[in-house]
Amino acid sequence: MKKPVAQVRLLRVAFHLDAPLRRGSNPRTMNPSESYSALLAELREINRLGTMESLLAWDQQTHMPGKGTPFRAEQKSMLAAMMHQRLTSKKVGDWLSAVETSDLVADPQSDAAVNVRHTRRDYDRAMKLPEELVRERSRLSVMAHQAWVEARKNADFAAFVPWLEKTIALVRREADCIGYKKHPYDALLDEYEPGDTTADVQAVFDELRDPLLQLVGRIVDCGREAPVEILERTFPVDVQEKIVRQASAAIGFDFQAGRLDVSVHPFCQTCGPHDTRLTTRYDEHSFGDSFFSVLHETGHGLYQQGLPPEHFGAPRGHPVSLGIHESQSRLWENLVGRSRPFWRFFLPKLKHVFGPTLADVNEDDWYAAINDVRPGFIRVDADEATYNLHVLLRFELEQAMVTGDLAAADVADAWNERMKKYLGLTPPDAAKGALQDIHWSLGAIGYFATYTLGNLYAAQFFEKASRDLGDLNAMLARGDFAPLLHWLRTNIHSHGQRFGARDLVRRVTGQKLSARPMMEHLNRKAAEIYRI
Amino acid sequence: MKKPVAQVRLLRVAFHLDAPLRRGSNPRTMNPSESYSALLAELREINRLGTMESLLAWDQQTHMPGKGTPFRAEQKSMLAAMMHQRLTSKKVGDWLSAVETSDLVADPQSDAAVNVRHTRRDYDRAMKLPEELVRERSRLSVMAHQAWVEARKNADFAAFVPWLEKTIALVRREADCIGYKKHPYDALLDEYEPGDTTADVQAVFDELRDPLLQLVGRIVDCGREAPVEILERTFPVDVQEKIVRQASAAIGFDFQAGRLDVSVHPFCQTCGPHDTRLTTRYDEHSFGDSFFSVLHETGHGLYQQGLPPEHFGAPRGHPVSLGIHESQSRLWENLVGRSRPFWRFFLPKLKHVFGPTLADVNEDDWYAAINDVRPGFIRVDADEATYNLHVLLRFELEQAMVTGDLAAADVADAWNERMKKYLGLTPPDAAKGALQDIHWSLGAIGYFATYTLGNLYAAQFFEKASRDLGDLNAMLARGDFAPLLHWLRTNIHSHGQRFGARDLVRRVTGQKLSARPMMEHLNRKAAEIYRI
Repeated sequence: MKKPVAQVRLLRVAFHLDAPLRRGSNPRTMNPSESYSALLAELREINRLGTMESLLAWDQQTHMPGKGTPFRAEQKSMLAAMMHQRLTSKKVGDWLSAVETSDLVADPQSDAAVNVRHTRRDYDRAMKLPEELVRERSRLSVMAHQAWVEARKNADFAAFVPWLEKTIALVRREADCIGYKKHPYDALLDEYEPGDTTADVQAVFDELRDPLLQLVGRIVDCGREAPVEILERTFPVDVQEKIVRQASAAIGFDFQAGRLDVSVHPFCQTCGPHDTRLTTRYDEHSFGDSFFSVLHETGHGLYQQGLPPEHFGAPRGHPVSLGIHESQSRLWENLVGRSRPFWRFFLPKLKHVFGPTLADVNEDDWYAAINDVRPGFIRVDADEATYNLHVLLRFELEQAMVTGDLAAADVADAWNERMKKYLGLTPPDAAKGALQDIHWSLGAIGYFATYTLGNLYAAQFFEKASRDLGDLNAMLARGDFAPLLHWLRTNIHSHGQRFGARDLVRRVTGQKLSARPMMEHLNRKAAEIYRI
Repeated sequence: MKKPVAQVRLLRVAFHLDAPLRRGSNPRTMNPSESYSALLAELREINRLGTMESLLAWDQQTHMPGKGTPFRAEQKSMLAAMMHQRLTSKKVGDWLSAVETSDLVADPQSDAAVNVRHTRRDYDRAMKLPEELVRERSRLSVMAHQAWVEARKNADFAAFVPWLEKTIALVRREADCIGYKKHPYDALLDEYEPGDTTADVQAVFDELRDPLLQLVGRIVDCGREAPVEILERTFPVDVQEKIVRQASAAIGFDFQAGRLDVSVHPFCQTCGPHDTRLTTRYDEHSFGDSFFSVLHETGHGLYQQGLPPEHFGAPRGHPVSLGIHESQSRLWENLVGRSRPFWRFFLPKLKHVFGPTLADVNEDDWYAAINDVRPGFIRVDADEATYNLHVLLRFELEQAMVTGDLAAADVADAWNERMKKYLGLTPPDAAKGALQDIHWSLGAIGYFATYTLGNLYAAQFFEKASRDLGDLNAMLARGDFAPLLHWLRTNIHSHGQRFGARDLVRRVTGQKLSARPMMEHLNRKAAEIYRI
């Protein structure tokens, strides 16, 4: 009935601007302070392109009609190319040099120093990769991913071997371009967990391995089983939708600055300083699938919402690392969301909305069910304890792949051997084994470690928060999550990338990263539930 | 429970590219064919930025959380500035000149000639506007729009006068920059309806005015009233959602290449060659609000889906003009959607899903109700006939505003005077009078005429389609919409901007644009319903 004025756009596409048009700017004639301003403006614009890529990605997984896929890929790759070009432009290099040699960065914790330090890092990494390699990596990831989808469907590891081989060769070349001191894997790890070396991660994983294996062994041996069927009863999806939203809002997610939608795989995507979007999926017969993934993604979202918005688009307003990001999601999912006090607060609400379905369930049973420890084949379905054994396995295989000690063709066997050793299981096929994860197909080698680093950081932060805040359990039990969120905002979120991950944990907790807090947490829980 | 790999993006933002990085390219050393390829590639990239702006706009009106607004404005204005810069770059001018003087454009209907002709037009228009004016226009539209929202809320025309004054002065300056032969309004009109002059539009509106006034007069005088209450019964929103989707799909909208969502104002937005999105709104007590707006937006969507996808991003793949676009929406909304044969097919479905609500309704009553002609204050609520009187009024006032014959302060009075003359009504206040439309607040002066041009084109196309297709009424009555859509695709959609609007209608119907087909259509309907 009415004609949308938006249609005007069709014909006057070029005329709705209020941003300044780009002026020519010559770094040679600028003083350091002008160079810093110019650099910051450029970073914010590059990042603004990144937020558009985020929206394109979010939309693709939540709303885009099926036939939109090929063009969406063109839109995204155009943005990626534009960002790459602008980040690696000569003027960015000149601005960086001008500021780095000035007084502006004298205090390493100043905003300017933080922004320049991290931009230098990104710039150098980007400059070290020849364009041909960057392009090859992108092309290969598309093809290897398609091959992986097919191979996994058919549980046919051999079909994926040639692609894994090419991927390993490529990331190895990438590591050589970027450079490393001790281990080529250092260069890959550093992309996901800046500052961490293979030896750093190895040290804390070594500390974790035996105690964790012992704990899982004792749980399996004790013969006591949690009543997990209560999580598989019938939970109508519309009621789940209400209750997960309630939980997300209760722990602090701001729905005026965010959303929750449905997608095949849950994720958290930030499209602007006040626009962070979570997704989940619903299964009528699995309460945990949506509930804990929403707590998890809310944890990521609370970090994004807690970063200083005035620094959005520059490192001072960015998350520290994937490990620290994961610590925030795991803290809310596991340390809070699988704790007894949380359910003292939330189980009555659940019993209220689900009525007869949960009428016979008491707190002990519920607490045991959501904390059931049970070795399984699939990482993403694993419990709080065994999850980390899946990560150790991948961390070890990846290093051997990158050095050439483990050939692509032998990966499935090596996988199964370690599964037996760590989890006492042999996968029935490669789909439940070495083909289960998407990461390698995308060339993301070096990523997995950040999951367990996140668990370790989470436990260590939570231990300190409990000490700082007084009776945190009592707060959680009465649904008062604000003090904990405030603590995280003050100690972690508000700093952006001011401190590196290892430095941050030392400053916040007074101790270096260690496996102790997580193992104490897991042992305490096991003692309570499994009486061991 | 699981960590989204999408999170990888946080740290490796710059590396997912497969599009070629921009190469330096010197038009001086290129032959015409190379220049044309380079131009085409550039146009497609500029347009790809436009599709991102479309997604940002769509998302803003359908999903974006409230606090996202300020940053969304930054994203959009950055894109607009980038598009403007790239369109007006020297190399685009050089490429155009190189191709224009070559054999490539010898045949004016060739793809190359079409693309170059329209790009030249856009380029020249953009180059003629000084950057300062472009920026002022954008700034003013934001402020004038805010002032309008407030003024309309308070029905306070005086509060809007200073903004309307500034807006008129600005578009007048714009007209002077762009240039015109006879009337400054020509330069404005040409932005929305390329090729049409004020005199062209005036001629066909003159042909329309008296017969239309006579028809509406006779209907009002006949004293017969349509049973409109049947459209205001209770229609549950979830059932409406199903039925409008069914109707949209029935007439040919491809939901694999499009969507339907909810927004405050219905619109159609294209985000890619296979990604066209419609919106509507639902009112439980107004069946027509959603149903006819969905048919209308589907008409726009069918045009977008029928443009040649291989030419997406270049004029050869773009819609002709707003008038032609509107002809497609009006054709499906009115010529099809308010016809008796359509409801012979669709009313039984409606009666089925709404059950007792419509049990007592017969085809005659329904047909009369959805075609009720009744003078009213508000354009967007107007029927098929009186709608055009609202447009005539605005078209006449706008010309006088632009020449200076009508001062901003006198617009409300002039409005009321013409309302009395054309519709026999005096608005109770300015909110129902001169403040009702958003257009002037956005600086869109010259736009309104395209609505009635659309109605005229629609009727003329439909008349010819009926002649070409044999018994079109019988096809519609059995729900066979494919022949009509095919006819539109072949005769209109597939040409993109190959022909101008006036040329197109002459080629397709063998006659120049005229008010006759629409008046015959309206008279026929009135004779049937009002027995006059």
